[in-house]
Amino acid sequence: MKRIDWNRLDPAARSAVLQRPVQAVSETVRTGVQAIFEAVAARGDDALRAYTAQFDGVELAALEVDADEFARAERLVPAEVQAAIREAAARIEAFHRAGMASSYQLDTAPGLTCQRVQRPIQRVGLYVPAGSAPLPSTALMLCVPARLAGCPEIILCTPPRADGSADPAVLLAARQAPGVRVFKLGGAQAIAAMALGTASVPRCDKLFGPGNAWVDEAKRQAAQRLGGPAIDMPAGPSEVLVIADSGANPAFVAADLLSQAEHGPDSQVLLLTDSEALLQAVAEHVEAQLERLPRAEIARRALASSRLVLVEDIKQAVEISNAYAPEHLILAVRQPHAWLPQVTRAGSVFLGDWTPEALGDYCSGSNHVLPTGGAARAWSGLSVASFQTAITVQEASRDGLRVAGPCAAVLAHAEGLQAHARAIELRLEQPA
Amino acid sequence: MKRIDWNRLDPAARSAVLQRPVQAVSETVRTGVQAIFEAVAARGDDALRAYTAQFDGVELAALEVDADEFARAERLVPAEVQAAIREAAARIEAFHRAGMASSYQLDTAPGLTCQRVQRPIQRVGLYVPAGSAPLPSTALMLCVPARLAGCPEIILCTPPRADGSADPAVLLAARQAPGVRVFKLGGAQAIAAMALGTASVPRCDKLFGPGNAWVDEAKRQAAQRLGGPAIDMPAGPSEVLVIADSGANPAFVAADLLSQAEHGPDSQVLLLTDSEALLQAVAEHVEAQLERLPRAEIARRALASSRLVLVEDIKQAVEISNAYAPEHLILAVRQPHAWLPQVTRAGSVFLGDWTPEALGDYCSGSNHVLPTGGAARAWSGLSVASFQTAITVQEASRDGLRVAGPCAAVLAHAEGLQAHARAIELRLEQPA
Repeated sequence: MKRIDWNRLDPAARSAVLQRPVQAVSETVRTGVQAIFEAVAARGDDALRAYTAQFDGVELAALEVDADEFARAERLVPAEVQAAIREAAARIEAFHRAGMASSYQLDTAPGLTCQRVQRPIQRVGLYVPAGSAPLPSTALMLCVPARLAGCPEIILCTPPRADGSADPAVLLAARQAPGVRVFKLGGAQAIAAMALGTASVPRCDKLFGPGNAWVDEAKRQAAQRLGGPAIDMPAGPSEVLVIADSGANPAFVAADLLSQAEHGPDSQVLLLTDSEALLQAVAEHVEAQLERLPRAEIARRALASSRLVLVEDIKQAVEISNAYAPEHLILAVRQPHAWLPQVTRAGSVFLGDWTPEALGDYCSGSNHVLPTGGAARAWSGLSVASFQTAITVQEASRDGLRVAGPCAAVLAHAEGLQAHARAIELRLEQPA
Repeated sequence: MKRIDWNRLDPAARSAVLQRPVQAVSETVRTGVQAIFEAVAARGDDALRAYTAQFDGVELAALEVDADEFARAERLVPAEVQAAIREAAARIEAFHRAGMASSYQLDTAPGLTCQRVQRPIQRVGLYVPAGSAPLPSTALMLCVPARLAGCPEIILCTPPRADGSADPAVLLAARQAPGVRVFKLGGAQAIAAMALGTASVPRCDKLFGPGNAWVDEAKRQAAQRLGGPAIDMPAGPSEVLVIADSGANPAFVAADLLSQAEHGPDSQVLLLTDSEALLQAVAEHVEAQLERLPRAEIARRALASSRLVLVEDIKQAVEISNAYAPEHLILAVRQPHAWLPQVTRAGSVFLGDWTPEALGDYCSGSNHVLPTGGAARAWSGLSVASFQTAITVQEASRDGLRVAGPCAAVLAHAEGLQAHARAIELRLEQPA
């Protein structure tokens, strides 16, 4: 890992440290995704089957997981994992439920009531990647809030395995949304199917979930279409930024950096510390712990573009973090609560020495689908609200219109919109 | 206006009735916007000045509105309009403030606390179109929630007038966000400036506001860029769908249809009613009221693609409305509260005979920046939350990690992510 002394860098070098490595969608991916959208639009399920044969190496008779396959999953997944899925789901549900928006109403004038009500998005499309490993935890993070939101149709796509089956742990996690329909589709073709609809796969109103560069580009192209679905957020490589002071445990910090680095060679890992001793100790622990990791090769490649940064003090570290806008921010400092109010941009924050990011990845209760690539400056992680729309409602009585109507009519005339003014004046002129 | 009996249509014809006329971005607009982004990226303010000369016909020395121009605006805007702006702002503020999300926290296990906190988006870019008329009301709808969210930097672009000044009413409305910086820029070049940043115009984290096809396409292209800003929602022509029963006042309904139709020739207007007599009466009132409208020509063109639709009953009308997902829905029926729970997709709803859409456009308190073109199936109108991000936070004590950690470790192993498991196990193994 590269070591950097922040205060010896000029502004250009500082900005280079905070750059994400991927700065552009490759032309291969962009045109490849376009071709997939065109094929799925033109040939529907036939195109999906062809891509699945090409990319996943399996010929599927039925794209959708049936009741037998769900039943088989319950026999295949070890009891310990099933229990962990239930335990995680319960905690995710508790935290997400507590944060659900309530409807509210307010009289903004005598005889004029405004309210806001929540509605589930009618048909949501969830994507659960498999990549290097199947991710039942992602199925939980998508299905639990979709169920809490009350979405009547929940569609989930996940890549098939070599034998044509879906990962059984993903299926069990998906069942946290009891009516879920699961399709064995991966990559850009899964996103295209849910965005456009085919004979098998329903067209969805909003698409959710992380994925690789192809999935991310497919979500962007889906959202770019006129009348296309909404997307939850741009997806990109996972990231952690750790701020640690001299009191932090270097073995813990190293373990947290490595748990991020093992995600993939493009994972982003940054440590900011005001302690040179801690920085040195973390570097040593990283090397030592790497020895024992099965995914050491992936982690080493991620660490090659990662940084250990010496800063002036924790205040400066928080400022740098805000400029970077990390997906995950670990505050391994003595007074994490004192610093939290200064954090303006981050996906999810982990306080103190005993809250590894891995806890939030699985079962603290917070959602692990979070903004990456600096998107935390304007996007938030998933919540129940991501699966709902809010509708505003207003109702004036005749008296209420007498109070508030003239203001609207004045503004309508000022904007040259006489028909707007007339819709109010006509009512005000109406004989009792 | 075309009259249609819904129950005599086959499914294809029904679906045609609910189609929006604009189905694709024109190639001229798409490539034109691309060229504008390239020019602004390459030449910054020089490109902005050149486009402003070309499209708005004015040569601007300074793009930004200065203190003198703000002061002049106060002298130019009639007192009655200034009072209406203040009255509308107060009602918008009251309703938006009441709906602000609170931070919350929950212990999801003994010794494990999760919370969600709100943060203002640091730099927001607002667009206020002028088009056929300046829209101070739109400045209110953007600036009031941006201020309530606490956004530290608020940038607003609005096209210059022929004399190089900004519309004074727009400036007064913008001052509802006291620190706002206003730039005299319109169209796609304004969006490109806020998305990319130039020497004059700061690069923004999220872009807001309605606009024409060029502005809409520019927002889509901005959002499509890797690392680009978020956008509030796709923008499209304004729409109203009125559901009226036999007890509705046909003059009121006609006035509401016309107030939508005057927005532009591409405005969408639909009436659904179960009363043939009401349908006939509305058609007559539309013709009669058109005579007296200054913008009759625009309204006539919009009405040419609009529909008066006879339905079986109000239940069917609500189902059709849900399929259409209108921006504005007026329930001019005798029991609007009984029908509201059935409404699943709409931007904003107006209940009863005395709540014209124009009231919500200006001063009921709800936001008039709403999803159009069917986007209400997945997007909501603006609220304070649109100007904020939500950050989740978790903190485990050592005991808390003992309770929740093993569940995370089991799932990490199941996903083949050993470094994730190690980050937990290492802490659990730590001698006390």
